[in-house]
Amino acid sequence: MIYDLWYWPTIQGRGEFVRLALEGAGIAYRDRAREEGVEAMQRRLAASPRAPFAPPFLELDGLRIAQVANILQYLGERHGLALSNIRDRIWANQWQLTIADLVAEVHAVHHPVDMGAYYDEQRAEAARAAAPFLDERLPKFLTYFESLLDGSSAPWAIDHRWTYVDTSLFQLIEGLRHAFPRRMARLSADLPRLIAIRDAVAALPGIADYLASDRRLPFNDNGIFRHYPELDAD
Amino acid sequence: MIYDLWYWPTIQGRGEFVRLALEGAGIAYRDRAREEGVEAMQRRLAASPRAPFAPPFLELDGLRIAQVANILQYLGERHGLALSNIRDRIWANQWQLTIADLVAEVHAVHHPVDMGAYYDEQRAEAARAAAPFLDERLPKFLTYFESLLDGSSAPWAIDHRWTYVDTSLFQLIEGLRHAFPRRMARLSADLPRLIAIRDAVAALPGIADYLASDRRLPFNDNGIFRHYPELDAD
Repeated sequence: MIYDLWYWPTIQGRGEFVRLALEGAGIAYRDRAREEGVEAMQRRLAASPRAPFAPPFLELDGLRIAQVANILQYLGERHGLALSNIRDRIWANQWQLTIADLVAEVHAVHHPVDMGAYYDEQRAEAARAAAPFLDERLPKFLTYFESLLDGSSAPWAIDHRWTYVDTSLFQLIEGLRHAFPRRMARLSADLPRLIAIRDAVAALPGIADYLASDRRLPFNDNGIFRHYPELDAD
Repeated sequence: MIYDLWYWPTIQGRGEFVRLALEGAGIAYRDRAREEGVEAMQRRLAASPRAPFAPPFLELDGLRIAQVANILQYLGERHGLALSNIRDRIWANQWQLTIADLVAEVHAVHHPVDMGAYYDEQRAEAARAAAPFLDERLPKFLTYFESLLDGSSAPWAIDHRWTYVDTSLFQLIEGLRHAFPRRMARLSADLPRLIAIRDAVAALPGIADYLASDRRLPFNDNGIFRHYPELDAD
């Protein structure tokens, strides 16, 4: 049983949240667009029935699942990455959806007015968007996440073992540190439990192997987390 | 058994997707912030453990669920609003998450650079954001949704009966028609199956009763779907 993951082959992007869960759990998959290119992915994307709107999507045995939170929930239930308890499943999904909201806001900082245009075409608007994001939204999300970590499952978010919530928090912290190193340096002092999750995920054997491999793409200025120094601040 | 729904009491907003599913299915609930006000909601929102990031959230027997897609998935499984078949459950959730992505883009049109500021403070950026939204993103989403409706479950999206996907599509079409009447008048001709879902949902007994009641708030310029004529176009 090998999953087919389809995602843009040159960026971490939203696909990275799926890659990390698969790698952490040691679930076999092929990163198909990295093998076969974007055109092959576009053909799969458009294929009926039940076509996804956008990558990433995961395929197995004729089942095709899109939307990161949906994919992770499926993997969680099927592979024990999340809890069998209904309340904990709901809670993990709620975490992931809130992480996804922040990820969308991160993307909107460098693409505030036109998703189909380049950053250079909307630099003035991006500069304006960055200020309230760094001053209000980012601290609000991160202190909220930190407040949920009451220590009862430390270092993990839920139930004393890692779940996809933890790998997603890892990616969130890594991405934010790449994109906004100055602001994150200042905020991190007040986020000890989030940082502890980031560190614990990085030390998981499957993740440590992955991060050291060429399967882990570097951050770059085509993805979600982009380092434009002019958008960062202390 | 009566659910407590908590959402901003003066707007449809994201809470409306939950209200419609509850009303359509005849599930008893109290719209608590409309009874007790925003301060009561803020206290509930902040209460530990497992506090939500933002409204809407639903409570029952000590369970508190936030994020629209998460709430609808729970209601769907518990009250038969979505399919018991795992593939159809995943598919309904995928629909909802993609609808949510479009809803977020609708909000970003009138708040492109500062969520915490008024529209009047970002009118120039909003005008710039509206053009690619109306020309590219909105048609892309709507023709995608229309393409999924292959007629096999007509008028419904999945499995020959209404689910929360249909009530959410109803709200989406209603909201878009309110916000962008000129553009929607032009696009609607190519969306017969989406419009048929909108009409079929409006005719459901529970929904017809709800829409005729004072529980249905009117659209206004504090919600997600706002009618600013200067942002619309033919």
